[in-house]
Formats: sequence, structure tokens, C-alpha cells
Amino acid sequence: MVIAEVSVIPVGTKTPSVSEYVAKAIKTIRQQESVKYQLTAMGTLLEGELSDVLELTKVIHLSVFDEEVKRVVTSIKIDDRRDKISTIDYKVQSVMKKLA
Amino acid sequence: MVIAEVSVIPVGTKTPSVSEYVAKAIKTIRQQESVKYQLTAMGTLLEGELSDVLELTKVIHLSVFDEEVKRVVTSIKIDDRRDKISTIDYKVQSVMKKLA
Amino acid sequence: MVIAEVSVIPVGTKTPSVSEYVAKAIKTIRQQESVKYQLTAMGTLLEGELSDVLELTKVIHLSVFDEEVKRVVTSIKIDDRRDKISTIDYKVQSVMKKLA
Amino acid sequence: MVIAEVSVIPVGTKTPSVSEYVAKAIKTIRQQESVKYQLTAMGTLLEGELSDVLELTKVIHLSVFDEEVKRVVTSIKIDDRRDKISTIDYKVQSVMKKLA
Repeated sequence: MVIAEVSVIPVGTKTPSVSEYVAKAIKTIRQQESVKYQLTAMGTLLEGELSDVLELTKVIHLSVFDEEVKRVVTSIKIDDRRDKISTIDYKVQSVMKKLA
Repeated sequence: MVIAEVSVIPVGTKTPSVSEYVAKAIKTIRQQESVKYQLTAMGTLLEGELSDVLELTKVIHLSVFDEEVKRVVTSIKIDDRRDKISTIDYKVQSVMKKLA
Repeated sequence: MVIAEVSVIPVGTKTPSVSEYVAKAIKTIRQQESVKYQLTAMGTLLEGELSDVLELTKVIHLSVFDEEVKRVVTSIKIDDRRDKISTIDYKVQSVMKKLA
Repeated sequence: MVIAEVSVIPVGTKTPSVSEYVAKAIKTIRQQESVKYQLTAMGTLLEGELSDVLELTKVIHLSVFDEEVKRVVTSIKIDDRRDKISTIDYKVQSVMKKLA
């Protein structure tokens, strides 16, 4: 299990708004069940098997292209920890405990 | 006002756990009031003036060094939109509306 | 064809030096021919088909784990342009021309 | 001294080409001397004092805005090593030596 963050930026969209494309990406994510997700203001967190996360990232990336969008910049950061099971919730709680 | 995401990775920490260092960064953020923050599993979201966000990033980055940690890799992504006011909450809601 | 940048950070390495792990990643890249690469001070540039680049990123990521390293943070940024053929060399030359 | 990588993406540019904006950023960098730079296909490497690098990043980021561009996404990754002096050239050579 890995935790990842993916973000997509369509380039050449005529307007500064890209929420339409992020919504398309989220719809793509919702069509599968192997990878969990959480939307944030700067990207989408993913939690699942490494292969599933990379495959989903590819599908998300491709979903952003359309008649208007001919260039997409997609960033992924993968945090892969093998000494213990880590989840999106666990990582945040681990920091919160140290702050308490 | 910009929205940003900052993440720090201490290199050479002996153990794979870095939550202690993220907690130090969050404590640093809490010592000021000009920039709002939100902790996620892959970084910390910031909302504030560009100069304040960059200054805070510098302070966070420096806070991670200690006797043990001699190398820190800090990533920042700044989303700066000038055609309308944008906030952490607004960005997420904007996508959620398109999904509804 | 896409252009991408991949970087790996092993977490918990006892020393701040990670060049040994970057060298392992480059050796992994050299074992295949479908994706071209260029080493920089902050990552490795890749040029190839989207599927090949993602598959190679997975192999690179996995190559960093060993007896000592139990956590790896891998970042990938993919620049995928469909209106014209783009290469590592072309992108740099395109900027240089505008500077001339 | 830190080594960093900065990349700018103007959002809402009508065309997929952004080399014009990268050229503007490079012109901005050339107007100062405290931070060295190296252009790559996926960003610009910077080498200098932490404060200078962050200040320059701010100036680069602001230089991308114009009549057409109302949104800019700027990413910076800072690699700051305190146990030895590191440079853009040194980092690459350090990996090349291990490959030889």
C-alpha cells in the first residue's frame, strides 16, 4: 500500500479556471474501487497498491485531454513505506499525536 | 492571496519515520497568524499573501534541521490566481459543485 | 511521446548522501531502451511513451528499496503535449530561441 | 548554499505553448548575479543562498503574469545540505562517479 498525491494542470484552457478538469479526474477515480481518494485544494490524495495507483494516474491524466486541451502536466508524488502499514488517516493522526 | 502546498523531507534520519519533523514544522506554522494552514497526509496547505507564504516556507524549512538532520528537501507549489479571490475551501467546493 | 522528470528520495538512510541510490536508479534506466534519459542535479529527465515512462518509474522506485531503505518518496512530473512532437532537446531549444 | 529547481506554469494561455513565459523567467534570472542557473526541459536549476533563491523564485513567479495570464502555478524544490558543500555540478558528478 502506498499513499500518493496526484495533480493535473491542463495547459491552454482559455480561462484560468481548471475545476471542470479536476471534476473530470475525480469522476474517473470514482469509477474504480481499488484506490481510495481524498480531494484537497492542491491535489488528490490516493491510497492503494503501487500498480493500481500508477495505472489510475495514467487514466486520470488521459481523461483531462479533450477538444480544447492539447497539453496536460500531471504530477505524482508516491510515499511508499515498507516497515509498517501506512494510510492517509494514519499519517495525519501520527503528526497530530505529536502535537497534542 | 495565494494557496500553496509545502512538504519537507529530512534526509538521513536513521528511521523511516518523519512525523516528528512534520510536527516541528506545524508548531512553527502555529507561531504565526498571517498564513492559514491545513495538514494533509502528503503536505501542508497554506493560504496567505505570497510574501508571507514564502517567508513561512523558509522558516519551516530551517526548523527541520537539528543535530541529526543535515539535509532537508523542501517542496513548495504555489497556486496564484489574480482574476478572482481563491481560498482553500473555495477551491474544493468549486470542484464539488461540478460533481454534484 | 511525453517528457517527464522523476526523482527518488530514500528516507531513513543514516547519512545525508543519496547518490548511491540515484546511481542504482540510473543503472535501472540503462537496462532498457524505450525511454531516453538525461541526469540533472535535481532529478532525471525521461522521454518516451506515457506507458513506458510510468512503467519505468515503477521499476526505478522499486529499485531504491534495500535492506537499509524501507521508505521511498518518488516524484514524477509528466509533460504530455499532443498538438506537436516535443522532445527534451526541442523544449530547451524553444526557450533558447526566444532568448536569442 | 542550496540547489533548487523552479518551474512555472501559466494557466489560461489560449495555446499549449509556454516557452515565451519560460523565456521571460530566464530573462528575470539573468538580471541578477547572486544565483546561478541552468535551464532544463522540465524546469530551471538554481544554486545560491536560500534567501536569494526564494527571493528570486518570487520575482520569477511574478514575472509570468501579464495581460493574458491571470493564474500562475509555480513549483520549487529546495535541496539544502549542511554537512558538505554541494553544487549543481558536484551532485551530477557524484552520481556519475558511482556509475563509472
